[in-house]
Amino acid sequence: MKERIRCAVLGLGRLGYWHAENLATRINGAQLDCVADPFAEQAEKVARELGVKKWTQFTYEVFEDSSIDAVIIATPTSTHADLIKRAANSGKHIFVEKPLTHDLDEADEVIQEINQNHVVCQVGFMRRFDPAYAEARKRILAGDIGKPIYFKGVSRDPGSPPAEFIKNSGGIFLDMSIHDYDIARFLMGSEVTSVSSHGNILVNSFMEEFNDVDQAITYLTFESGAAGDIEASRNAFYGYDIRGEVIGTEGSIVIGSLKYHDVQILTSRGSTHDIVPAFPERFKDAYQLEMAHFIDCLRKNEKPSVTEIDGKMALEIGVAARKSFETGEKVHLENTRKCSSPM
Amino acid sequence: MKERIRCAVLGLGRLGYWHAENLATRINGAQLDCVADPFAEQAEKVARELGVKKWTQFTYEVFEDSSIDAVIIATPTSTHADLIKRAANSGKHIFVEKPLTHDLDEADEVIQEINQNHVVCQVGFMRRFDPAYAEARKRILAGDIGKPIYFKGVSRDPGSPPAEFIKNSGGIFLDMSIHDYDIARFLMGSEVTSVSSHGNILVNSFMEEFNDVDQAITYLTFESGAAGDIEASRNAFYGYDIRGEVIGTEGSIVIGSLKYHDVQILTSRGSTHDIVPAFPERFKDAYQLEMAHFIDCLRKNEKPSVTEIDGKMALEIGVAARKSFETGEKVHLENTRKCSSPM
Amino acid sequence: MKERIRCAVLGLGRLGYWHAENLATRINGAQLDCVADPFAEQAEKVARELGVKKWTQFTYEVFEDSSIDAVIIATPTSTHADLIKRAANSGKHIFVEKPLTHDLDEADEVIQEINQNHVVCQVGFMRRFDPAYAEARKRILAGDIGKPIYFKGVSRDPGSPPAEFIKNSGGIFLDMSIHDYDIARFLMGSEVTSVSSHGNILVNSFMEEFNDVDQAITYLTFESGAAGDIEASRNAFYGYDIRGEVIGTEGSIVIGSLKYHDVQILTSRGSTHDIVPAFPERFKDAYQLEMAHFIDCLRKNEKPSVTEIDGKMALEIGVAARKSFETGEKVHLENTRKCSSPM
Amino acid sequence: MKERIRCAVLGLGRLGYWHAENLATRINGAQLDCVADPFAEQAEKVARELGVKKWTQFTYEVFEDSSIDAVIIATPTSTHADLIKRAANSGKHIFVEKPLTHDLDEADEVIQEINQNHVVCQVGFMRRFDPAYAEARKRILAGDIGKPIYFKGVSRDPGSPPAEFIKNSGGIFLDMSIHDYDIARFLMGSEVTSVSSHGNILVNSFMEEFNDVDQAITYLTFESGAAGDIEASRNAFYGYDIRGEVIGTEGSIVIGSLKYHDVQILTSRGSTHDIVPAFPERFKDAYQLEMAHFIDCLRKNEKPSVTEIDGKMALEIGVAARKSFETGEKVHLENTRKCSSPM
Repeated sequence: MKERIRCAVLGLGRLGYWHAENLATRINGAQLDCVADPFAEQAEKVARELGVKKWTQFTYEVFEDSSIDAVIIATPTSTHADLIKRAANSGKHIFVEKPLTHDLDEADEVIQEINQNHVVCQVGFMRRFDPAYAEARKRILAGDIGKPIYFKGVSRDPGSPPAEFIKNSGGIFLDMSIHDYDIARFLMGSEVTSVSSHGNILVNSFMEEFNDVDQAITYLTFESGAAGDIEASRNAFYGYDIRGEVIGTEGSIVIGSLKYHDVQILTSRGSTHDIVPAFPERFKDAYQLEMAHFIDCLRKNEKPSVTEIDGKMALEIGVAARKSFETGEKVHLENTRKCSSPM
Repeated sequence: MKERIRCAVLGLGRLGYWHAENLATRINGAQLDCVADPFAEQAEKVARELGVKKWTQFTYEVFEDSSIDAVIIATPTSTHADLIKRAANSGKHIFVEKPLTHDLDEADEVIQEINQNHVVCQVGFMRRFDPAYAEARKRILAGDIGKPIYFKGVSRDPGSPPAEFIKNSGGIFLDMSIHDYDIARFLMGSEVTSVSSHGNILVNSFMEEFNDVDQAITYLTFESGAAGDIEASRNAFYGYDIRGEVIGTEGSIVIGSLKYHDVQILTSRGSTHDIVPAFPERFKDAYQLEMAHFIDCLRKNEKPSVTEIDGKMALEIGVAARKSFETGEKVHLENTRKCSSPM
Repeated sequence: MKERIRCAVLGLGRLGYWHAENLATRINGAQLDCVADPFAEQAEKVARELGVKKWTQFTYEVFEDSSIDAVIIATPTSTHADLIKRAANSGKHIFVEKPLTHDLDEADEVIQEINQNHVVCQVGFMRRFDPAYAEARKRILAGDIGKPIYFKGVSRDPGSPPAEFIKNSGGIFLDMSIHDYDIARFLMGSEVTSVSSHGNILVNSFMEEFNDVDQAITYLTFESGAAGDIEASRNAFYGYDIRGEVIGTEGSIVIGSLKYHDVQILTSRGSTHDIVPAFPERFKDAYQLEMAHFIDCLRKNEKPSVTEIDGKMALEIGVAARKSFETGEKVHLENTRKCSSPM
Repeated sequence: MKERIRCAVLGLGRLGYWHAENLATRINGAQLDCVADPFAEQAEKVARELGVKKWTQFTYEVFEDSSIDAVIIATPTSTHADLIKRAANSGKHIFVEKPLTHDLDEADEVIQEINQNHVVCQVGFMRRFDPAYAEARKRILAGDIGKPIYFKGVSRDPGSPPAEFIKNSGGIFLDMSIHDYDIARFLMGSEVTSVSSHGNILVNSFMEEFNDVDQAITYLTFESGAAGDIEASRNAFYGYDIRGEVIGTEGSIVIGSLKYHDVQILTSRGSTHDIVPAFPERFKDAYQLEMAHFIDCLRKNEKPSVTEIDGKMALEIGVAARKSFETGEKVHLENTRKCSSPM
């Protein structure tokens, strides 16, 4: 086992910063050697704050530095394909935020490059590492609910991001539901064969300009004969609401909780508990655990449990969902690059 | 206020028997004078058990008996239109199980006959009387969640009825989801303008013969600009699972509970509570309260809060959902007979 | 089986009124023939409201009326002994509110009189009929938690009754905890052998005058070797909070719920449900079921499942708890009149 | 701020090992330089596993090593006083497991020694750092429940430790309830003025030999006029059950949860979730957070929020509870060394 994995984080927005912080302070065996961001000030500030010896505003410097073992890519999705290819080319292992890319052809190129250079790539589907989702999979594999026949997912954000973000987000199916597409594959143990999508603007009329909606549903079928539905919403003004459920032939498993603190307040106005406000609070452990898994795999010379192939499979569902939403018709998936066995 | 309403129950299957039992023993101001069923034995047995003075296997006897004020129709749906028209014609008030009819033209005839004869008609959407749904509506009207923007309904049966029932049921949209179509109108305070439906057979392959499915989803839009989705399933092997949720611009309201007894058992195998097994247990109070409302309205000479018009509106959604499921396309509703104001 | 039990309700305070209303409208086989209250106006008003043919302000009239089969005694506790004895003497069956009496000698006299006159007597420990407590007992008897070794009870009122009530209440142990003493016997299946009690005035300083407290705890031991504790409080400003728990050698059973409606409201201030406000809402079903049991026993000529003996046993614990509170010492119970087998 | 605190862990039983692991891998700014245990093998194994450069079986070596800044004492309670005094004497800061000592005189000596040597001492009341308890205190201080008037604590272990442990444990009041005594002070913001205790052996008859019990209750009064009760049990065969509740003049706050994973399984046998099995799972975060606080205080030259004074105050309550249990009488506390302001 390697003593230590030398890492660089590319992109120091909110997610990039967390990854950097986790690597710097909470992940045994990781050594954060460099942080990079086009805004030099932000790079310098993060480096100082986390005690990282090197910072840069030029990502190519990272690829030229032969001491770096792995890069964490948390830049805008439009830059993913280029950065992954360059990282692979320079022999660096890759952790990349979801979605892998916005485009299936790019995804294929990226996968080819990764393979040719014999590096590993983990995609940031952190939900798989959330203790509740991980436990659910364990229980499903143990047969506790029989054979899975239906997946039900809900992802609700407490409000919409600004127009600037929505514009480049890829739309609600690729930005939000993609988490559920991945977790559906993960929990159902089967590939998606068709999708039918619908959506509407319920609150944020500005989205019309971007052909996006703030509420959507995707109806799915699976190779196994199972089905499922996935709701996405930007309008949960009460908090961050992520639910998952898998119905099987002998029972059902319900995943997740809205409860923020394990404290209940009783007053004459009722019994109240706080609601998880946003994704950092809900998936704090998951973000840490996915990064620990990445570093652990590199130290042990193993392949991560969630790779660029999973990235492409989820993307394919998202692209199909987008197309169904636009055409009003069911879209069948080819699953050209299907993972041999998702379970 | 009238002292007493003399009633006859037509059809003594499971639901008819309950209505008879409620009228005979739990509804103040009701007098159950006659029970009718084509199976003479069943009619006689129920009469004896509930202390009803008269029973018959010929429904026309009920319509000829001028002492009867009201009939409760719990016969197969295919007989509803004929019975309602004959009841109206003989001046009797009507309580009829859902769906009103299986056919929109019949529904129109029935409505006309009811109007011409100045009788009242209540449709058996008992969910509106369930304390949880009723409380939810109260809270929504009080503005507790702001303006309703999304409805989410789940109705899961613990297993499929036999083929014989499925054959005449009208299909999952008219037999099961119709409860959610009605309750969606009730809680959203707005009429449905379009539906898109999907469904699959997940377990019960025998349904193929009847072009029916054991799992379905309906995506809805409302006049108010709101949307919603409704899941129906015959495959909840763990129990009877009815959920409702209305998201508003300031919060959300979640309705119902799987908990059967208010008792939690803690053992080394975990913390467990019983799940509501079937609809009699879940809606026991609702069945009693809807009948109490019907009798109360008749005693006070008032119109019931849920009438033949609501029966037709829900039917129209169900028929459209069925069509969308068959064609794979979104179906727009005409709402020709819309209720002036559902709230 | 007798067709009908003719009843009279004595005392038309809050509880008396409910019993009268249940008998008049919800209990099959009961006929409420007379209501009595020293305040003639109240008696007349209740008679009119519930359609009872006779009312009186003189209770002796009831005992002289040979058509009356049973009396329901809901008058102040100080009058119980006299009324029970007179009822028994005139051959009438008796339902009496808890506590049976305030005094053990009186309790013995009452028991003797009941026995000599061959009437039956049910004491108003309605908690035994609450569906949650009844289910708990069923599960305990079924062995679901092994052998019971600890009972934990909590009874909290949403505020103190007025001084006038406290003065004649017998104190918190006899007025409140007596329900838990009875239910502890019911669920543990064993008699109490010793009690140690403590209490304090936390809010209502006026209670000092009556040597009463608004918060108390009783520690119990049982013949079986089990133990338990019971908390009572007048200071639950958030609602009516009744909890029960039995720990066994293989698990634990937790009884009851604070939830009033099956509706959860999610807003930015958290997830909230209403709390049961007071005992009528919490024990509505229990009050109806205990009275249905009483009438049913009389119709079938059977002994009620909770009798004057249970009334005395609970009283004995309450008197001992009061003594322990006053002396600061553990009090052993003689259990002179123990029920042969409480389970 | 100091860059790094050099630590040694004394005693490598279960708790000592966790502290060592947390220091070695999860606490930023800590450097674990030495582990000590009388069993050389265990010391060596832990050192190897956690990558600690030095191990020893002789604790005096630690005190002689001037490079060590702080010691973590996780040895048997009987050794605490001696080790704390020697640590203070050699100028090392101290983290010591609860209870501080088993004896009040020793506690006084220890406190004196700590003061004279100007070192800081944190006592291992980890519950204060549990997110739920910490949030509860925040909410109480914010006035969310008004003025605290009652504390209710439950601590139940899933089974008894072996006789060897019970023998040296100090008994149930000093071994288990001491956590609740401390947390009661923490949440009520007031000192305890009297205790009355009771207890029984319900299952583990071997405890008789040690004058210990496997179930106990302590009734408390506070200077503020508040009261409280604390249950302790070794007999929760279903799991590890820790509950806290503070009733105030405007509401109540209920702390903690039995739920282990955020996953609910629905089958025909009911709806089930796993129960927290034991204290490592329940207080994992708390153990990490208390150690992070200790290191953080040392780096910033600040006093920990929970010190040797709190250790002595809780000990005083425990000693009094033990005495009340033995004598059957209420014991008043002198609070000779009271913390100036616990809130």
